[in-house]
This record gives sequence, C-alpha cells and structure tokens, in this order.
Amino acid sequence: MDIAALRSAHPDHWSKATAIRALTLDAVAAANSGHSGMPIGMADVATVLFEKHLKFDASAPLWHDRDRFILSAGHGSMLLYSLLHLTGYEDFPLDEVKNFRQLGAKTAGHPENFLAHGIETTTGPLGQGISNAVGFAMAEEMLRARFGKKIVDHHTYVIAGDGCLMEGVSQEAISLAGRHELSKLIVFWDNNNITIDGTVDLADRTDQVARFKASGWDVQEIDGHDPVAIDAAIAKAKKGKRPQMIACKTHIALGHAAQDTSKGHGALTDPDQMAAAKDAYGWTTGPFEVPSDVKSAWEEIGRRGTEERFAWEGRLAEISDRKRAEFERTMSGEAPKKLSSVIRALKKQASENEPKVATRKASEMVLEVVNPVMPETVGGSADLTGSNNTKTGDMGVFDVDSRDGRFVHYGIREHGMAAAMNGMALHGGIRPYSGTFMCFTDYARPAMRLSALMQQPVVYVMTHDSIGLGEDGPTHQPVEHLAISRATPNTLVFRPADVVETAEAWEVALTQPGTPSVLSLTRQNVPTVRKEHKTKNLAAQGAYVLADAEAGKRQVILIATGSEVSLAMEARATLEAEGIGTRVVSMPCMELFADQPESYRKRVLPAGPVRVGVEASVRQGWDRWLLGERGREAKSDFVGMSSFGASAPAEVLYDHFGITADNIVAKAKALL
Amino acid sequence: MDIAALRSAHPDHWSKATAIRALTLDAVAAANSGHSGMPIGMADVATVLFEKHLKFDASAPLWHDRDRFILSAGHGSMLLYSLLHLTGYEDFPLDEVKNFRQLGAKTAGHPENFLAHGIETTTGPLGQGISNAVGFAMAEEMLRARFGKKIVDHHTYVIAGDGCLMEGVSQEAISLAGRHELSKLIVFWDNNNITIDGTVDLADRTDQVARFKASGWDVQEIDGHDPVAIDAAIAKAKKGKRPQMIACKTHIALGHAAQDTSKGHGALTDPDQMAAAKDAYGWTTGPFEVPSDVKSAWEEIGRRGTEERFAWEGRLAEISDRKRAEFERTMSGEAPKKLSSVIRALKKQASENEPKVATRKASEMVLEVVNPVMPETVGGSADLTGSNNTKTGDMGVFDVDSRDGRFVHYGIREHGMAAAMNGMALHGGIRPYSGTFMCFTDYARPAMRLSALMQQPVVYVMTHDSIGLGEDGPTHQPVEHLAISRATPNTLVFRPADVVETAEAWEVALTQPGTPSVLSLTRQNVPTVRKEHKTKNLAAQGAYVLADAEAGKRQVILIATGSEVSLAMEARATLEAEGIGTRVVSMPCMELFADQPESYRKRVLPAGPVRVGVEASVRQGWDRWLLGERGREAKSDFVGMSSFGASAPAEVLYDHFGITADNIVAKAKALL
Repeated sequence: MDIAALRSAHPDHWSKATAIRALTLDAVAAANSGHSGMPIGMADVATVLFEKHLKFDASAPLWHDRDRFILSAGHGSMLLYSLLHLTGYEDFPLDEVKNFRQLGAKTAGHPENFLAHGIETTTGPLGQGISNAVGFAMAEEMLRARFGKKIVDHHTYVIAGDGCLMEGVSQEAISLAGRHELSKLIVFWDNNNITIDGTVDLADRTDQVARFKASGWDVQEIDGHDPVAIDAAIAKAKKGKRPQMIACKTHIALGHAAQDTSKGHGALTDPDQMAAAKDAYGWTTGPFEVPSDVKSAWEEIGRRGTEERFAWEGRLAEISDRKRAEFERTMSGEAPKKLSSVIRALKKQASENEPKVATRKASEMVLEVVNPVMPETVGGSADLTGSNNTKTGDMGVFDVDSRDGRFVHYGIREHGMAAAMNGMALHGGIRPYSGTFMCFTDYARPAMRLSALMQQPVVYVMTHDSIGLGEDGPTHQPVEHLAISRATPNTLVFRPADVVETAEAWEVALTQPGTPSVLSLTRQNVPTVRKEHKTKNLAAQGAYVLADAEAGKRQVILIATGSEVSLAMEARATLEAEGIGTRVVSMPCMELFADQPESYRKRVLPAGPVRVGVEASVRQGWDRWLLGERGREAKSDFVGMSSFGASAPAEVLYDHFGITADNIVAKAKALL
Repeated sequence: MDIAALRSAHPDHWSKATAIRALTLDAVAAANSGHSGMPIGMADVATVLFEKHLKFDASAPLWHDRDRFILSAGHGSMLLYSLLHLTGYEDFPLDEVKNFRQLGAKTAGHPENFLAHGIETTTGPLGQGISNAVGFAMAEEMLRARFGKKIVDHHTYVIAGDGCLMEGVSQEAISLAGRHELSKLIVFWDNNNITIDGTVDLADRTDQVARFKASGWDVQEIDGHDPVAIDAAIAKAKKGKRPQMIACKTHIALGHAAQDTSKGHGALTDPDQMAAAKDAYGWTTGPFEVPSDVKSAWEEIGRRGTEERFAWEGRLAEISDRKRAEFERTMSGEAPKKLSSVIRALKKQASENEPKVATRKASEMVLEVVNPVMPETVGGSADLTGSNNTKTGDMGVFDVDSRDGRFVHYGIREHGMAAAMNGMALHGGIRPYSGTFMCFTDYARPAMRLSALMQQPVVYVMTHDSIGLGEDGPTHQPVEHLAISRATPNTLVFRPADVVETAEAWEVALTQPGTPSVLSLTRQNVPTVRKEHKTKNLAAQGAYVLADAEAGKRQVILIATGSEVSLAMEARATLEAEGIGTRVVSMPCMELFADQPESYRKRVLPAGPVRVGVEASVRQGWDRWLLGERGREAKSDFVGMSSFGASAPAEVLYDHFGITADNIVAKAKALL
C-alpha cells in the first residue's frame, strides 16, 4: 500500500482518519493488549461515515432519531472509542482512552453498551452486532409506522468483519433482513482477508457478494481506503430499496509492519514499529496527542447534527401532546398504567373459573389482554407460532407492506431471533418477546447471554418445557435448560404453575427495566392451583406458600415449580390424609426468591420439616433450597430428571421417570 | 399434482415409494402424533437413492465402508424407519414401525442413533444433520488418505429441509464443505416451500441455489417426484469435484388433502383423508400391510450391496495384518496401549519439573505426546489455534491437497465445528477434539448437547476459562459455562489445576467410549500443585485430597478446581500457620466424583470441618459439595463469581471480585 499516495490524495481526510489510527496504537500500547489492526484498517470508512453521513450529535447521544452505528467486529473497539472521543462525547474524555481496558474504564476490551452513552450495543462475540442490527432496523421501521417519518427516520450502520460473516447467526440475520427489505440497514464488510489463524482462505472461500445477493441485498464493492469511493457508496446505499452491503477492500494494520498479516489483528506494541508506522502516516505528535486542528475538525463533525436534532425536537413539539407523551413513554420503556389492571382482571377471572390449560395457552391468554394495552410489545416465533402461542388477534404481521404489524415470523432462526430482539430492545421503543421450544434455548444462547449482560428486558417464551411434550423425544425435551438460564447472571427464569402465576410472571417480566426473562411453559394442560384471587403478585416474591399444614403439624415441605406444582398438591393430599402435615411451596422464580429478605425466605422454608423438591428437570440449582441455604436445615430429596428424556406419550414418561405424586409421597415418607 | 400420471409413468417405482407413504400414514395415525408430510414428499428421492445408488447392506448395518444416509430433517423419521424396515434391517421389524413413538421403541419421534443400527445420527434439532454430514465426509477423506481407497471409499448423503437451511449452522457447514471441496457429500434439499407457520416465503426468500454456489457447491435442480431425473442427478453428483446440492422440488404430503400446506407438515390422522390418499396412491392393502411383491422388491434392494461388501471384506483381508489390526482398532474407538505410558511419563516429568504454565499450554504438552501415538485424533480450532493450543507439530493441516492432515482450521464457526466433530465421531475411526474460548460454549451448545445425547466421546478444549483471561472483558469471560456443561447429562467437565491433572483429564477423555468431555483450561499461568508423581489417575476419581491437615486437627476443608487450586493451597498455608488444620481437596471433575462409592466421597469430604468452595465461576452446582450431600454436614461458604466479569488485567479482576487467598482465609475463619 502506498501510504504516501493516500496521504497526499486527501490530506484533510487522512489526518482525521489517522487520528483514529494513532489513538488506537497508543491505547493498545498503553494497555499492552487489544486489537490494533482493524481500527487502523477501517479508519477511512468510519471517518467518511461520521463526517458525511451518520446522523448524530455528540452532545445528545440518546437523541431518539439518531442513526445507529454498530461495531459488529467488537474487538476493534478502539475504532469506536476513538470516534466517540474525537467527536466530543461527554463519556469519552482523553483519560478514558488512556485507560483503555482497565478496571472501571468505559473503554472496556470490547464495547459494552451499559458502560457509556454512544455505545449502542455490546459486541465481541462475533456475528452478534450484525444480527442486533436487524432488530434495530426492524424497530425503526415499526416505530416509523407508528409515529411517522417526521419523528422516526434513521439508518442503522454496521461494520462487520470476516468473523461476523463466518458465524452462522449472520446468515440468519442476512436472510431475515433480505426477506423484510430492510433498506435502512447498511453493512460495511471489512474485507481485509485476515483472521487470527491466517488468511481467510485457510477456512473460507465463500463469495460473500454472491451470498448477500442470494439473500436479497444490494452489494457494492469499493476500495475501503478511498474516501471518495466510500462517500459515493454510502450515498448510493442510502437510496437503495433493499438492505445494503458495501464490501470494503481494506488492509488490516495499514502502514504498520504487520499490515496484511494475522499478527496485525492483535496488539501492535513494538515501539520501533509504532514509530515507523506513525512516521509513514506523517503523524508527528506524541502519544495520545491529537493536533488541535484535527481535533477541532472532529469536534465540528460531532456538532454536525445539532441543527438537525433541533429541527427534530421542533417536529416532536408540533405533534399532539398525547402522541408525544406516548412516544416518550414508549421510548423510556415504562409500562403503561393499564398493565396491572388487565393482569389483575385476568387473575381474578382465572382463579374463579379454574381453567385447565397448558401454561403456553395461559401465556396466550395473558398476551391477549396485554398486547392491546401495550402497543410497544412485538411478538414472534421461530416458526412455531401455533405452538408457542405468541401471536394475539390484534397484532398484525410485520411485513414489507405492513410495517405496523407487531408479530414477526422469524423463521427457523432462534439465534437470529434472539439477537434481533436484543437489537429492538437496545433501539428503544419496543418491548420484544418471542418463542421457541425451550430445548432450543441452546440455539439462542449466545444472544440470550447478551440480553442479560446488556441489561435488556427481552422476554423469551420457551414452551414445551419438559418431558411433558411427549413423543418428540429427547432432542426436544429440555432437562438442563432451566439450570442453564438460572446459572446466567441477571436473568429471571419463571416456571409458572397455572394461569394466575403465568399472568404474574408476565407482569414482572414486562416491567423489568434491565433484566431479561425466560418463561418456561408447558405443552400439556395443567390444572389451576391458585384458586383464590389475590391482588398481590406472589410470583414476584419468587416462592410462596400455596397450601399449608395445620399449625404445629408440619412435617414435610414440598417445593415445586410449573407443571409439577399440581403433582405436589396431589402428594400433599395423600400425605395429609395419612396425618402427615404437608406444606406446598410454589417456586415460580428462584432468582426473585433469592432476592427476598432472609426473614421471608425463612418463613417460606423454615428449618425442620423434611423437604422434597419436584421439577421435571435436573437437580442442579435446587440444592440451595433443599439442603438449606444455611446448611444443617433439613433432610431432603428431589424428584426430577437425571438423564435425557425419551420418546413416548407424556403421561407414560412421567411414570417412567418417576415424576409422580406417589413417588413424591414415598420420598417424603422415606425421609421422615 | 397429477398422482395418476405419476403412478402410471413408473409403476414399479411408484409402488415402492408408496410403501413408504402408506407406512408413514399408518404409523403416524397409530401414534396419533408425528410428521407425515415430509416422508410422503421425499419418498421418491429416497427410493431412487436406496434402489440405485446408496452403498449399503441391510444385513450388515455397521459395514465400515457403507455410504452414510443422514436424515437432517429428522422430524420426517418415518421416512428412515420405513426404509430400514422395508429393506430388512434386523432392528426394524414391522412391530417397531407399529410401535412408532412409544416408550422403548427404536422408532422414536426423531431418529436416535443410540437406539438402533441403521440410524447414523440423531436428528431433529434442525441444521444438525447437514452439519454432522460435513464431519462424516471429512472423516471419510481422512480415513481414505490413511487406509487407502480400497478400504475407505464411500459417500455421505443428506436430506435437508428448509428448516435445516434457515438455521445458521447450515451456513457454517456449507461454507466449510465448500472450502474443503468435500465432493463425496451429496445433499438433497427437500424444496417443498412449506414450514410450520406457512409457506417459506413468510420468513425467507433466499435463493438457495445461489447461496450454495457462493460457497463452492455444484447445484442441480430437479423434480423430486421424477425417478428418472432423480437417478440422473445422483449419478452426475457422484462424479462431481465439489460438494453437491440437488434441489428437489417436491410436494409435501403428496396426494393427501393437506398436500402443499403447513398442515401437511404435521400428523395427518383423519381416517377419511387417509383413505382418500391411499385410494389416490392405488394402495389397497390394510394398515401396515405391504404387498409381498413390493416388500420383496425392497428386500432385494436391502441385499443389493451384499456382494460389494464381500468384495470389500476380501480387500480388507488382503492388506497386511498390522494395517488391518490398526484399521479395526481405529474403527472400534479403542485407545492404543501406548496412551497410558506416554501420559504416565508426562506426569512424572511435570511433577518433577514443576512447570508454571497455563493449563491450555499443559493441554498442548499432553497433545504433543498423545498425537504421535494416537493417529486417530483430529484436532482443530475455531480460528484460535494459537490460543487454544490444539495443534501439535506432527499433525499437518487437513486441506484439499493434504487429506492426511489431522488439524482442521474450522474458521469462526464454533457450532459447525462441534457438529462436524459429532459427525466424525459417529462415522468412526476418528477421535475428534477441538478448541474455542470457553465462553463460546454458547455458540456450540446445540451440538455439544447432541454429543452427550448421541454418546459420542468428542473432546471440547475450552480455553480462557474465567475472568483470568483479563482485558477482553465480560463477553469473553465465562462465569456460567461450567454450570451449563455440568447440568448436561452424560458429559464430563474437567477443570484441571496443572500439567499433571491436565494429563489425567485427557487420559480419561480419550478413553471414553460414549461420553463427551469438556476441558476447562486457563489462559493464565498456574503453578504445579501435584508435586509428587503418582501412577494412579487421581482426576479419574473426580476429587481427591491434595494436601491435608495433621491427623485430628482438621477444622477446614477447602475445595477448589483449576486455577483456584493454587489459591486454596496458599490459603491453607496461612491457615495452617495460624494453627487451623486445613485440608485442600482438588476437584477436577464433579461428575466422576459423584460416581465414586459413597465411602470414598465421605473420606474426601468428611462431615464436620467447615467447607469453602473456590472456583472463578457461579456457585450453581457447588451446593451438593458445600452444604453436604446428605444435608446437615457442615457450615460452608463459596468464593467465586455471582455476576458477569469485567475488562481489566487478570490479577486486578481476581482482587476486584475477591477471589484471593486472603478472602478464602477470611471466609474459613468466619465459619469457624
């Protein structure tokens, strides 16, 4: 690469882009870790995007109608941090750049959305950013349909690398975006031909241009170091009718000794090589020093959108007070006041009528009353709409000609679905939920973890939650998946027992500001166990006494969740008939119970009586409640699964694996 | 569709194919559940494949050189069961077909490889079969390179549906197959345009032909009901130089009232509609009755390969005794005798030299001595070769021109990698292991679960196993992933503390006949804690006493794994210096410890002393050992993680999260 020619061809552009390169080299050297090559290689594309196209105002990073910029290749975080610092974001003074990758810095190794304004999404696990972006772009379409083009009208830009495009989830994202003609989604592919192991060719010879076209994208191919070509390509992309991919031929670690090598992917810290690179760049200032004219030029870019923002604020002021209030409520993520009253009404009705329905059906009953009063919900399913019961009558289907539709047919793409939901939640204005079979938690896992890490209140509707799904067999029967989600920090896992608890679980999930929820729901019918209507949300306490022994006669506590609560109630009836005082504790959410004051936990699970846990799942996660949080509390046992399931009718499997009222009774007696 | 025309055009073919259709209708009706439409739609393709091309012998389902037939669209299991029954597989008498989806039947809802011979792989979770198939085809190439074309020379055939192709993992599989020019892999795409939610168009408009071509495949498009076209396409595909996709335009539930509808995907049990369909088919016999001439014709197909098998057996007899013995040992999965001696030698050396290395490096030291004596190992990495330390000097790289290479650059495709390893293991003759960062367990999860369910001894080399990886931050720091793998049935999770334990873990993993292993390995250096050489494999016991208190003075038991064992040893030194007798238990594998006799478990973890568990991970899974298996055993506490990690140098993070010797000491004292 002839660096001198690049410098002289566009000197103003060069100095701005090279500020990114120099800050990257300095920050990575200071941290002695990080990824230098990608920010250096993509500095030209990013500079042109920020200078000429990206709608943003560095002084208002939360402006609702800003364009979103997503660095899917998150290891190149110094690209983003440099841009945010240079353009003047408040969260990114120079000290943050100097503190790259240190404890407490906003400049973490990979971009973390929850650390600072200006970081739209957490990236690093490859393929996630581009898949989030599909959700961002869908959210923009949906909100534009709802609030109008004057209020919502922005693009989603993505920088993705070869790693993002090799990950399978990118195919799910690309094909979903193509299907929905998300024309305001513009992806730059950093085509540098290098991965950690060597050249891309070692593992991949995919024709990415043909691949994107096959999924309905427009593609342009450009020199990623030519600012004129970059500008023209973005201008053209903004006019397209389909999602846009701009393949940018770039040189990783441009101008450094490690240019075009896999070494260039990592931390370039050799002082002599750094000096030589800066020399080639014509960069003469010291470490972390950006010449004031260059910094000023960048700060002007940071202010470029201010006027446009003012104009937008003016347009927002012009719409009706009611519409504006609703827009602001929606964007804030606050639940509407009516939510609790429709939930209360449903609970009352259910506790009186005692329906015997599957909890997936119960969930649908909840959504039927919630969706009409909560227009920000967007439902979906990974091609199991009729099984997950996530589509309600009023929603409409999101499609090219019906952007106001609130149900998304995600296709057989659990991972892409979860990642898109993260994108919608991050965009704001949408409260996404969607369903698949619980066993396919596995497919969605990388994005589900990110919901938790990114503090996004996405709701996962996981139906067919045990061997109770029957004949489809062990590939479809979750046994470890409750444990998997429970092991994940900042995740609420609900396994409601009936309509009442399902309504309560949804209420908690839909009012979370920063925690995702997993609803574990049955395929099979279960009886109503909450037969009295209570105003209070008992599921919000995580566990509660559903039925108790006579005062002073309590010998046994049965703790159960979901479909097994009714089994515990049956077992209790038998035990009580034999004079064995038995309490049943329903435990729809272990995390919320763990968060209760110790006094409440002790009241629900007092030391003394023997305990039997009942859940059609592995025991992992139960010991705390069975063995006793403080140790030495009680003798205990567990009725559940310790192996994979099998293919047979549900009731046969429950017998086969010993998850029966009789077995609960036998285990309780054996402990006494 | 003009069924009459199809019948009359190829009456012999029609009756054979329709035997599949009729058995499918009858079995699904008897079970009152299942998927009728896909077997009915793909019966023509399968019939031609089995009749004219598939190299198999129904009387010898384990013949090593058989072609492999993989039903990636596993919900269409009755297609496979019908074929296995009709051609005369011993495991599939008519009673099995009649017992479809019942407890104990070999005819489970989805094909389960471990239930019967003739089922090559477990399918049902979509996208897995086609991704396994890449591993099957790689294994065939590798074994052909090793043992010669006279002994190994077969194809891998796959039937995949739209669901398989929408799942992201299919892209990883397709691009990997294309990169490696796996010309003996032939995929039939059941292009029926129907998914559960409706027509494919609801969620997808991908041009699959263009997509496969973009990844280096040859593609043919045919009428999937025309036996002449099917035959010609397969014949052509077998001569190709690249992987082959045959797009088969089919009608789901052909000839049934539900034809071409999403209803046709599921269980078609309406008696009148069944009768009408059979009438249209010209099928006049009763339920489960196949006319004897049709059954005979199918049985002849089942015997078609017998002669070829004899010829192969003759060729096998002709090679040298030594080579044949090695071929048979390799295919049996039995480890070579030398394995234990090289492991013992390495343990001796390490316990004497006390190297301070990361356990990922320890793992490489093991592989350096194992791979030369175990030629069936095939290593790999998802583009982290230098980080996972999975490539040893002698392996060579698997490539188009070096099929004898034993290291696979899988690319940034953790899921496809894991699924390919499953395929290699299922094929036989290969013991696959491969690496990624432990946090990306999430990406590989669906296939890791299947390793366990399918009883395949795949080894997952998961490095960078905690906050100890440092600056890359929480997206890369596993905290819940040990719990995730431990929650999964039939999975061994090893977290070795040093070179000695790492060698022991590998020895156990490499001698498993039917259980996958997850090795949790550090990025950071750790000291040698096993300073004496023992012949016995202590890791195989799951946990053992590493250092003990003086007899009678034991007040504290510290239980630790992996990188935290040395912290526990430091804490012990402090406690002992203060006169507090302290035992340290190293627990490299909870599953193996749980399998020990109770007497051993009690000896290692006697009731009485307070216990502190130490692991840079969430507590879930630890309570059994801390609270005491039998309850009422000991007071206890845990030093580990309860949130996501952060970005900072490793030692800073250990301090920040309180995973220090000082904190262990403090917690132990607080309990006393």
